[in-house]
Amino acid sequence: MALVDSPYRILYRDVDQMGVLYYSRYLDLFEMGRTEWARAQGFSYRDMEEVLGLMLPVTEASCRYLSGLRFDEIAIVRTGIAAWSRLTIRYHFEVFEEQSQRLCATGEVELACLTRDGEKPHPLPDSFVQILGTIAADKKGRKRN
Amino acid sequence: MALVDSPYRILYRDVDQMGVLYYSRYLDLFEMGRTEWARAQGFSYRDMEEVLGLMLPVTEASCRYLSGLRFDEIAIVRTGIAAWSRLTIRYHFEVFEEQSQRLCATGEVELACLTRDGEKPHPLPDSFVQILGTIAADKKGRKRN
Amino acid sequence: MALVDSPYRILYRDVDQMGVLYYSRYLDLFEMGRTEWARAQGFSYRDMEEVLGLMLPVTEASCRYLSGLRFDEIAIVRTGIAAWSRLTIRYHFEVFEEQSQRLCATGEVELACLTRDGEKPHPLPDSFVQILGTIAADKKGRKRN
Amino acid sequence: MALVDSPYRILYRDVDQMGVLYYSRYLDLFEMGRTEWARAQGFSYRDMEEVLGLMLPVTEASCRYLSGLRFDEIAIVRTGIAAWSRLTIRYHFEVFEEQSQRLCATGEVELACLTRDGEKPHPLPDSFVQILGTIAADKKGRKRN
Repeated sequence: MALVDSPYRILYRDVDQMGVLYYSRYLDLFEMGRTEWARAQGFSYRDMEEVLGLMLPVTEASCRYLSGLRFDEIAIVRTGIAAWSRLTIRYHFEVFEEQSQRLCATGEVELACLTRDGEKPHPLPDSFVQILGTIAADKKGRKRN
Repeated sequence: MALVDSPYRILYRDVDQMGVLYYSRYLDLFEMGRTEWARAQGFSYRDMEEVLGLMLPVTEASCRYLSGLRFDEIAIVRTGIAAWSRLTIRYHFEVFEEQSQRLCATGEVELACLTRDGEKPHPLPDSFVQILGTIAADKKGRKRN
Repeated sequence: MALVDSPYRILYRDVDQMGVLYYSRYLDLFEMGRTEWARAQGFSYRDMEEVLGLMLPVTEASCRYLSGLRFDEIAIVRTGIAAWSRLTIRYHFEVFEEQSQRLCATGEVELACLTRDGEKPHPLPDSFVQILGTIAADKKGRKRN
Repeated sequence: MALVDSPYRILYRDVDQMGVLYYSRYLDLFEMGRTEWARAQGFSYRDMEEVLGLMLPVTEASCRYLSGLRFDEIAIVRTGIAAWSRLTIRYHFEVFEEQSQRLCATGEVELACLTRDGEKPHPLPDSFVQILGTIAADKKGRKRN
């Protein structure tokens, strides 16, 4: 399942006085998207923290805004892998409005793997790398074997 | 200093499509207010967590909304102590718009003291109780001696 | 359908450094709950604003916090009507963790009906009052006929 | 005043369970930064909306994360102009921790000018363009005359 769609209905709290989803909230939607992407592959971020003692802080994020999302509309966050290496993973995102299927935003987020306590770089968990290898090319543009 | 005033300028991100501060954000302002109240007494929440290993989760919160706060207006959060005991502290808040001095909201928040790891109830730190004793009546309506 | 359950999975963005849902976010969940409650009755907040030109600002909110909600847990927001009159509506909420069914918080929110432009009090829409009348007692403790 | 520094003290609500400022909140800080930048030049976003009937939605945003900001630390948002044209403006941002002066993040945000009602592109207000012209080169790498 290379791409995973996650729905989110826009609340009053999410829109600003222009009547559209505030621009920083797209990054919140991206978090939802990548958590659901991992879950759909059978991988849990929570286990990674609690069982493996690792965490994945964001190192880069970007978003292009194409069309506003209004109160009560349903955003569909489509999440996939843009690239990955042993130490980092880069997701890409498209956000659609469900009914009209209009594209509202695109974005990318890169995360690095760190030990939870020492804050040292650490390779991504093997179980996660195996999933990535079957789905997505790595940073050098090829699938891992 | 029984009452402490803390200013906050309303951002676009804070207002909803009615054009006023969204109702849950007042609780964020209350957090700012009580942190600044404690700081004004010479007490640091951060030290309490990091040095003493205690935390203060909220057990109750309430707010009455009287007048909206608009983008770019400055909210003044006036914070004081409503009541306290060895295990809990209750703050009260008034939120004014700075220029017109109109009262926008009032509220109360009660916190309990817990150990950070064990999540067991724990008396408030002595240094904090001493501050409270000089400023505010306790729950039974009298100042501590 | 007097009570309506709405699920929400807790994101990383929702928890604080105690590792539990931040206290103001329960009010965001309450907004989700009351929007879904109305939708389940066939009533749309969006139409009320856009078609009828009315809005429902919050006049009072309160919450009691009983147990923390952690990252990746699913909150179930159970929404019902506590009371209502021609001009106001008061919702009550219970928030459960889905798997353990533990009760995490209870709360109430009261809203008033205003004209969108003039900000004058206005009776709740008839279509909404009819729904309320079939489901819930009003403020005086009786169902409307 | 080409660069403007704006302080913001990190609240409990701003950090996640890693104990650092959540990644989407930097975009909220950027909004504070650009509002204060404009105010320091004598230009008010609020007047632009209310008096001129224009608005400035974000079309692109990006951020690189270098070091975490912790609860109770003070973030300094340093805001300047990266580029501008008659229809768009691009800000750049650096976020420092005040005491250590460590650089925590850098970012850019581009906004377009639209009419408030018609949502049509509209030139930036003349008063704003005059300010930009005295301070920053435009997109083609030269100052406007």
